[in-house]
Amino acid sequence: MSLVYRQFGASLRTISRIFHPLVVPHNTQKLRAPLENKRFYTGKTMDLKDLKYLNQQEAIAVDQELFTEYKFSVDQLMELAGLSCAHAVAKCFPAEKHPRILVCCGPGNNGGDGLVAARHLSLMGYTPTIYYPKPTPKPLFENLSHQCRLMEILSLTECPSVESASCNYDLIVDALFGFSFKPPVRADFAAVVELLQQTKLPIASVDIPSGWDVEKGKVTECDLEPALLISLTAPKLCARHFRGEHHFLGGRFVPPALQRKYGLNLPVYPGNELCVKL
Amino acid sequence: MSLVYRQFGASLRTISRIFHPLVVPHNTQKLRAPLENKRFYTGKTMDLKDLKYLNQQEAIAVDQELFTEYKFSVDQLMELAGLSCAHAVAKCFPAEKHPRILVCCGPGNNGGDGLVAARHLSLMGYTPTIYYPKPTPKPLFENLSHQCRLMEILSLTECPSVESASCNYDLIVDALFGFSFKPPVRADFAAVVELLQQTKLPIASVDIPSGWDVEKGKVTECDLEPALLISLTAPKLCARHFRGEHHFLGGRFVPPALQRKYGLNLPVYPGNELCVKL
Repeated sequence: MSLVYRQFGASLRTISRIFHPLVVPHNTQKLRAPLENKRFYTGKTMDLKDLKYLNQQEAIAVDQELFTEYKFSVDQLMELAGLSCAHAVAKCFPAEKHPRILVCCGPGNNGGDGLVAARHLSLMGYTPTIYYPKPTPKPLFENLSHQCRLMEILSLTECPSVESASCNYDLIVDALFGFSFKPPVRADFAAVVELLQQTKLPIASVDIPSGWDVEKGKVTECDLEPALLISLTAPKLCARHFRGEHHFLGGRFVPPALQRKYGLNLPVYPGNELCVKL
Repeated sequence: MSLVYRQFGASLRTISRIFHPLVVPHNTQKLRAPLENKRFYTGKTMDLKDLKYLNQQEAIAVDQELFTEYKFSVDQLMELAGLSCAHAVAKCFPAEKHPRILVCCGPGNNGGDGLVAARHLSLMGYTPTIYYPKPTPKPLFENLSHQCRLMEILSLTECPSVESASCNYDLIVDALFGFSFKPPVRADFAAVVELLQQTKLPIASVDIPSGWDVEKGKVTECDLEPALLISLTAPKLCARHFRGEHHFLGGRFVPPALQRKYGLNLPVYPGNELCVKL
């Protein structure tokens, strides 16, 4: 990189900070180490035992920093998070064997991830059906619902019984509550939480198995036991209590500086995969 | 699906249109044909010879409809488009052999796709460097630039010469001009267009090879010849004149109803892939 270093080195160190929004002067180091970035992501030294499990406060702080410090929009990260959930579902439950998916969406961002996942699952050949008992009155969520409706994705007005769900779906996506959840479950969601607790269908939980304590895991013996857990950004402490078959990490958008700041020690995502098995 | 049909059929046909934002009454058909959606996407009958190539007006109309009718945000679709470009680059130019990528970004949405692609390429182990001579003074674009800076992605303040580019990069991503482009090229971009025309490095063009007529293709003999063209949403007419090695379709977000309305006859995206070879 010597030519570019000579050609732009001076301007990078002097002009850039003043005139250009994008230049990172201290980063001229990379000019001499073009593979440093690659090594950062593909280093063989990372080990799942070093993977950080976030407590509720850390999860909220990392999330906030992505929006305030890194200036990501909710639209951006929700699209990537929901897409990675759809990919994890596709890896564990192929459309050929599990075409009919009931996607249960809660009132917050976890529910938004579910709406995005339903749209991508539909584009991937599944037949998702949405149960969204308490639609969030915010433009983004109304638009995500609108997109699902125009994608010809069916939505239910009533929570199906355990029996009808077992007859009519092959998998349930649990996108009810995320890492901000604090008990008790509100009345609007009592029926669907009961369905998730009682169904024999496999459940794919988005980030947090709904009803679990974000740090301690199951609160009661009858709490749901998902077959697939998709931790987003980084796993939360409750994931240590996960006993299901498939645990994936999704949300491949965490900047390296943020990974270092919180000591996340995220595993390497293989190739261009949007999720990685933990 | 008979149980659910009996259980919810009535409410779907009567209550839903009035009370629920998501229910699609006419879609109860899907209750009896859970695989219909899957067949739509994986039908073996589609043939690339039926693939629709859009003229400039059709490209603008499809794009507008995604935002106005389907209420997608630019954030959402730009994230998916840029991500699919990064995936197509990764398929054709592995990071092991082509780690150093110069991403040239224009003033419009094509440039925004480039900024998103640079961020994802960085997360995938590449070392992208951005040349963005005319940053767009809109919050989304300023935030995309900010994200790249905090992702420690280097940006150049001056266009590299053909010689320095050949020494310091392995691939150039052309994200300068999209389907709205009308000649002539403005002075701000003369140098980078000349670089793209004269470089011997492989070029990956986002949607439209910059400088080409959106419908007729190359305007002059010296116009650039990309090695990879990533058509987004649907190919434009100029793609018929593409002579490079790799032509991919990205932007896996086009709703089936919109595909039908414009007779796009898009090919089937394999599995959960975000781009498909044409």
